[in-house]
Amino acid sequence: MVSPEYASSTEVEVEQWRNGAVGKSRDVVAEEVPVALEYNGISHAVMMASPADLEDFALGFSLTEGILQDRSELFDCEVVTAADGIQVQMQIATERFVALKEKRRNLTGRTGCGLCGAETLQQAVRKPAPVLSAARFSAAGIYAAMAEMQQQQHLQKVTGATHAAAWLQADGKIALVREDVGRHNALDKLIGALSQENPRRDFSSGAVLITSRASYEMVQKAASMSCGFIVAVSAPTALAIRLAEQANVTLLGFVRQPGHVVYAHPQRLLP
Amino acid sequence: MVSPEYASSTEVEVEQWRNGAVGKSRDVVAEEVPVALEYNGISHAVMMASPADLEDFALGFSLTEGILQDRSELFDCEVVTAADGIQVQMQIATERFVALKEKRRNLTGRTGCGLCGAETLQQAVRKPAPVLSAARFSAAGIYAAMAEMQQQQHLQKVTGATHAAAWLQADGKIALVREDVGRHNALDKLIGALSQENPRRDFSSGAVLITSRASYEMVQKAASMSCGFIVAVSAPTALAIRLAEQANVTLLGFVRQPGHVVYAHPQRLLP
Repeated sequence: MVSPEYASSTEVEVEQWRNGAVGKSRDVVAEEVPVALEYNGISHAVMMASPADLEDFALGFSLTEGILQDRSELFDCEVVTAADGIQVQMQIATERFVALKEKRRNLTGRTGCGLCGAETLQQAVRKPAPVLSAARFSAAGIYAAMAEMQQQQHLQKVTGATHAAAWLQADGKIALVREDVGRHNALDKLIGALSQENPRRDFSSGAVLITSRASYEMVQKAASMSCGFIVAVSAPTALAIRLAEQANVTLLGFVRQPGHVVYAHPQRLLP
Repeated sequence: MVSPEYASSTEVEVEQWRNGAVGKSRDVVAEEVPVALEYNGISHAVMMASPADLEDFALGFSLTEGILQDRSELFDCEVVTAADGIQVQMQIATERFVALKEKRRNLTGRTGCGLCGAETLQQAVRKPAPVLSAARFSAAGIYAAMAEMQQQQHLQKVTGATHAAAWLQADGKIALVREDVGRHNALDKLIGALSQENPRRDFSSGAVLITSRASYEMVQKAASMSCGFIVAVSAPTALAIRLAEQANVTLLGFVRQPGHVVYAHPQRLLP
């Protein structure tokens, strides 16, 4: 749901220069709105995000960051438009809120930015348990899915400024696409949307497709949901590859028909 | 300076698929390392970054985030390799450290991630004072500078996975290029490097070029240094445009010879 006062794109007046000629025109650009995530009345973090699908974003972020373990622990989620941005007010299970407060108390101060909740190197790199994934896809199936995802990037089509994450089902169909100005947010929105639909969803049977690079955090988020197959349009980082190897995740990069590169666990990719 | 144990790129074994044919080969990928920024012995934040030019990164981050007001307030900066990543141990002026501690005390808890230090919407969007910039560049000069920046993206050439930020001097020359897996880091490294060279540098006479999109934070960082001219290869967000308008910053996007789009303050762009 898009909050009434914020749309995900807006029109602006611009100067278009082309081969030395200058003309006034109008351009559609992506909105970027501060979104405050609140748990049981306590503000947790502010993210810059596209103001669409924010309930999905809040749930997905809570799950991939380990604040919630399950959809059922989120009792209520309200998206409230404020003067300076949007508040997402979540009510979560007491047990989870106590755990979150405890985690905050153990930190020496606030963490400025960067990795979520990490203030020391020991906290920074989390190692998810190796995933057990029976996902199998053919290269042709992956290429077709990437083309289908592109078709469904509606915000990207008008703005040229947003990333997408898509869920490829075991049957080779794209089930869902989510978009955001931030690639982490797009993935969190996707995972949140899938978890809304089906709280007991098995993430081990499909694949996550992303339009961006595959950094450590992207692989970490997918692996934390037991997804064992990640397909990226662009390059992975070395740390993302090492994490994928350890977590038993198949990682494809530079996926641009008619070619791609397999960086980890090629056994799930069929000829 | 690259820390001895971490290089900015590494070789991995991959499977290359092309038109259905599969071959084993080796690929150079960008490293991504957790970097903990410490002030006077207190850990502040952990960022995922390319492990090069970390002194530049630490100084640039400290300046653009307003932790330091001036290069002279940074007394010492040591890059220490640890088991899980890299610590950048900074010693800063007591006055600045007291202000940082005070800011941390005023927050209700730690901020997970997202905007640096922002836990509430009121803290999220900072409005830098309008910059006074005499920078003037021609479109042809900008295109030439973008081509020159591309030539100097050494890490990008071998990995295809990193962003760059460059400083375009008033005389039309690229003075410096910095690269990182993260676009914010690349810009912080650039600003840090320029400030190391010349603590009294006037950022109002040149332009910042970036290979990425122009989000709110990219414009905020440049404007906080009184830079009034930002050139991005890709799209800006709506919030970045509004900030550029308010802060008197010229903002160019989709700069790809022979065309580009001017999103704010075209008066500094000469035919």
